[in-house]
Amino acid sequence: MKKKIALSVNAGSSSVKVSVYDVEFGQAPVQLAEAQISGLTSPPPTLKYVRDGKTVIKAKEVDDNIEGQRDAFSLLLETLVEDEDLPQIKSKEDIGIVCHRIVHGGDYSKPQLISNETYEHLENLNDLAPLHNANSLGIVQLCIRALPTANNVACFDSQFHSTIPEHIRTYPINRDIARSNKLRKYGFHGISYAFITRSAAEFLGKEPDEVNIIALHLGSGASACAIKNGKSWDTSMGLTPLAGLPGATRSGSVDPSLVFHYASDVGKLSPASTSDLHISRAEEILNKESGWKALTGTTDFGKITSSAFSSSSSSSSSSSDDDDDDHEVMKLAFDLFVDRICGFIGSYYVSLRGKVDALVFAGGIGEKSPQLRAAVVDQISCLGFQIDDEVNNKNEIRNVVEEVGKKGGLDEPRVLVVQTDEQFEMARACAEDAEFW
Amino acid sequence: MKKKIALSVNAGSSSVKVSVYDVEFGQAPVQLAEAQISGLTSPPPTLKYVRDGKTVIKAKEVDDNIEGQRDAFSLLLETLVEDEDLPQIKSKEDIGIVCHRIVHGGDYSKPQLISNETYEHLENLNDLAPLHNANSLGIVQLCIRALPTANNVACFDSQFHSTIPEHIRTYPINRDIARSNKLRKYGFHGISYAFITRSAAEFLGKEPDEVNIIALHLGSGASACAIKNGKSWDTSMGLTPLAGLPGATRSGSVDPSLVFHYASDVGKLSPASTSDLHISRAEEILNKESGWKALTGTTDFGKITSSAFSSSSSSSSSSSDDDDDDHEVMKLAFDLFVDRICGFIGSYYVSLRGKVDALVFAGGIGEKSPQLRAAVVDQISCLGFQIDDEVNNKNEIRNVVEEVGKKGGLDEPRVLVVQTDEQFEMARACAEDAEFW
Repeated sequence: MKKKIALSVNAGSSSVKVSVYDVEFGQAPVQLAEAQISGLTSPPPTLKYVRDGKTVIKAKEVDDNIEGQRDAFSLLLETLVEDEDLPQIKSKEDIGIVCHRIVHGGDYSKPQLISNETYEHLENLNDLAPLHNANSLGIVQLCIRALPTANNVACFDSQFHSTIPEHIRTYPINRDIARSNKLRKYGFHGISYAFITRSAAEFLGKEPDEVNIIALHLGSGASACAIKNGKSWDTSMGLTPLAGLPGATRSGSVDPSLVFHYASDVGKLSPASTSDLHISRAEEILNKESGWKALTGTTDFGKITSSAFSSSSSSSSSSSDDDDDDHEVMKLAFDLFVDRICGFIGSYYVSLRGKVDALVFAGGIGEKSPQLRAAVVDQISCLGFQIDDEVNNKNEIRNVVEEVGKKGGLDEPRVLVVQTDEQFEMARACAEDAEFW
Repeated sequence: MKKKIALSVNAGSSSVKVSVYDVEFGQAPVQLAEAQISGLTSPPPTLKYVRDGKTVIKAKEVDDNIEGQRDAFSLLLETLVEDEDLPQIKSKEDIGIVCHRIVHGGDYSKPQLISNETYEHLENLNDLAPLHNANSLGIVQLCIRALPTANNVACFDSQFHSTIPEHIRTYPINRDIARSNKLRKYGFHGISYAFITRSAAEFLGKEPDEVNIIALHLGSGASACAIKNGKSWDTSMGLTPLAGLPGATRSGSVDPSLVFHYASDVGKLSPASTSDLHISRAEEILNKESGWKALTGTTDFGKITSSAFSSSSSSSSSSSDDDDDDHEVMKLAFDLFVDRICGFIGSYYVSLRGKVDALVFAGGIGEKSPQLRAAVVDQISCLGFQIDDEVNNKNEIRNVVEEVGKKGGLDEPRVLVVQTDEQFEMARACAEDAEFW
């Protein structure tokens, strides 16, 4: 009973990722394998499978009748069970714990063992985050039936933020309605922020509850977090992941009345709604039809960055007006993102009263865009942050934590890149809690 | 033709104020009188009239059939014309210029002489700000008819912000819809920010285009503004005055999907809509039924402050649970406001790259609440701001500009209170523009 095989399941809007760990109670999990199906919204979906750090399947097109996250998870499970070189999973019964990443956890401040009772509560949370929880819940349901001997554990993206103080998490709206409808700032990306906090603290040679961090999780969904003494103090997302920074298809914070000037009837249900899933056109527009995609035509921030940094003027003879337009709008998107990110950094710097050990970049864009890191740190140099151009421009971030800032005096804040790992963090949290053993 | 009598008309949601000035082309206006009707939404309305700095009518209840801003303006006009001790206005024909404060000016970057053509354009702007422009437009219409010899000039709250750069004013949403529906950050309170910029620059012994200021206009509507080289660089309000800081009945920035979780059918037209005035229930909830009023039961920030600073615990034997609740929620509202204000200050400090000459408090709350000023400046002390408790706690702000911060080194930012005067600013702008003479 002291050792188990744990799966960490991470269902995104167009992908499902499963990581397999050997876990011992109270110890750091050891990864055995990782399998992922991506491209669910742009078929055919492809399977990638890595065992012992070696790529076994690189990008195999899989059957088109994989329709959603549940189908994808079934295929991943099959892949793991049938792999003869993964002796730790000979049958489904070998799986002891399944950790599910659930976006919205309402008032839950820690992972929950999913009983039938808890599952119902999770379904109710769906009302707060229909666009975000539904994919994961389908997989949870499947696991309860297909893996009856495993403990299913829900890990919430919101749980890390349960420490945000009341005056920060409260919206200035009718109190009774806020209470009955559970309207407050929850915050998300918390599994990632928990990983970042522990990793950065270790790197800085401090205990997690000794560090103050401004963390940026910048991916197709993006957010910022002020971490005070190792705990969430404020974050940019709100009641839902829509608030705060813009993302691949999300507007982020905009004037709350904007959507009523965007189109008529935005309060009506979206045609994509189902009997279980009520989404207004407004929420669909702001979550799915905005962000980089709407502004520039691409969701790929790497493409935006390289186009923003290409010098259209130097090739004026060969470039068409379209290219110039392209350059202009890409630069606009890049500058806009830097502006919004720096806004949160300034705000959180004050909120932490200037006591900041480090600024952390994480998430796909945070880890892979030296240009964005350089532009952000340049803009906040008045707060004492400084980038080390040579280190920052290195092609690859190899370690879990790498320092990309200049090491100044003892009091000067550091600039770090953390390769965040939500699956590991979920397995780690489960390995520490006797309730799941 | 070198001297005119100018009226500055400021129509709020429950009041109309008219200031009378003696203006000479290119010179600072000299105030002759000021008349105000308030309480339009809590009848009976009352009239106040001040001539030559002396109160002639203190708070006279006026006829209940004064129903809206137009009726109120008519009565004010009558009061001025009939006052025998105001010889400068013997008849309506003596009035040469009427400056109207209009909240939303769309793309206008300066005051506009209102011709029939412009008036139509102003009516179109109403679509962007139905809750805000309608009151003023009624008065403009009346003046065009009742004062045919006067030049009517529209001064816009948004015009000061026409300098906000594109990457800051752009929302990350569909570009074509943004363009066709004119969806971008406009910003408001600009007449006040223009006054603040000039006054603070003069106080600091600089030219307006040499100063960088973080200005806070805190009244029943509240906003913040980053002023760079005397021009608006960013501001907290957006497409409409809803975005940014909370106010007496406004939520300020909240998760844009919040209102869809607040009540059902929020996209439908409010019963208060008319054929000219389309307002969704959502916009009504967030503009009229939120803010201090919804959180604490009062719109009076002075009451919130004094209750927040009363020590409920010290009188536990005599105070009821209700009092304790009251204290708690008032403190919550106070702390929430300080948090949101400081968030914008930190954000703008970074946006101005740390080059800030002064933080300016203005507006009813900014001018009258030493507790709020002290709490805000304490929270931002890490940026070098410091309050002078003795000066800050003085009962009254007497001068147009008063310094309430400690005078530190040459590079340290100052903390000022400015008694902003939108009516004066409008008359001043008109006195400078030959088009209106």
